[in-house]
Amino acid sequence: MHVLPPSITRVIESFEKLPGIGPKSAQRLAFYLLHIPKEEIEKFSSALLNLKSSTVLCDICRNVSEVTPCPICSDVHRDQRSICVVEQPTDVLALEKTGAFHGLYHVLHGVIDPLNNIGPDELYVDDLLKRVGVNGQPLDEIIFALNATMEGEGTAMYIMREIHRRQERDPSLGSIKMTRLARGLPIGADVEYVDEVTLRRALEGRREE
Amino acid sequence: MHVLPPSITRVIESFEKLPGIGPKSAQRLAFYLLHIPKEEIEKFSSALLNLKSSTVLCDICRNVSEVTPCPICSDVHRDQRSICVVEQPTDVLALEKTGAFHGLYHVLHGVIDPLNNIGPDELYVDDLLKRVGVNGQPLDEIIFALNATMEGEGTAMYIMREIHRRQERDPSLGSIKMTRLARGLPIGADVEYVDEVTLRRALEGRREE
Repeated sequence: MHVLPPSITRVIESFEKLPGIGPKSAQRLAFYLLHIPKEEIEKFSSALLNLKSSTVLCDICRNVSEVTPCPICSDVHRDQRSICVVEQPTDVLALEKTGAFHGLYHVLHGVIDPLNNIGPDELYVDDLLKRVGVNGQPLDEIIFALNATMEGEGTAMYIMREIHRRQERDPSLGSIKMTRLARGLPIGADVEYVDEVTLRRALEGRREE
Repeated sequence: MHVLPPSITRVIESFEKLPGIGPKSAQRLAFYLLHIPKEEIEKFSSALLNLKSSTVLCDICRNVSEVTPCPICSDVHRDQRSICVVEQPTDVLALEKTGAFHGLYHVLHGVIDPLNNIGPDELYVDDLLKRVGVNGQPLDEIIFALNATMEGEGTAMYIMREIHRRQERDPSLGSIKMTRLARGLPIGADVEYVDEVTLRRALEGRREE
């Protein structure tokens, strides 16, 4: 059987390692790249090379950024007393797109997941706890915007308990409001087809109009 | 609204230009790359850079290769008197995987498609016609393994007509057998659900067992 030129195989192998790209797609992408101008490929290649060298994690919120503190943490117009806790940098992006939140973020880079040996120490949980009541100014609110999964719920529970403990030891932390994103029907959903857990949550969280 | 670091945006933009990768996937891939080791990204980056510089089109069959003539064309064990005409280099790969063909290939790099202004001159049709009866040794067979589309059929028809014309002018070319891939039910297909054109072709091409 005829084998592919190694220079193409190497590109296919690199694509195959990416999530959601199988052998067939990887091959199609590699052959597609053979047809595009050299300059485009060079741009792609150098963008990849620069990706890691020019990004850091913000010292405060642990979001991905080119500077630390990141533009959000250093924005004085944002509400410094409200922190939204998310799993991933992409969640920050999604929330920013709503334009509905004007406080700061904290990126955990995962969730507590005992089955996969991920505990609080593997995440940026401690950095979050350190932000509670820093500068002697207590926080107003911590919003848990974690995924609506078992692990997401468990992680929020763990962090809430840790904060409660700190509040008991140090009354100057004040009473921080801790909230979670609402559970309910996603926009466009049919009551008939939505799963029963979602429907129960939607009922429990019903609002007077 | 908070914007992404430019170094991430550049990677997202590069991914978005690839076929079948939308803005969401591009973003997911870029953030995924932030987590993988630097060496892996460097490998990816250099593989891309080398892709075009170390590949050429074979002077004979126009397949993508690192040398010309390509390993298939220069393989003396292959049947030099049988040429399989395909649209793309990936088609060569698919046919080689079957292990059922031992002749040479010819890659057109597309099909005649008048609606998109692609005529025979935009493809490697002339190079194929030049291979018919080269070295005074007439070919045994030309297999058209083009896609089962209007354009694929039309391109095969055009090339067959051109070869017939050459045969009329030059009787030394002999009578080359010209064949097409069989049309019929793909393996695993239900007669009930297959489209009517395929079913008609399958009936017409029925074989005695």
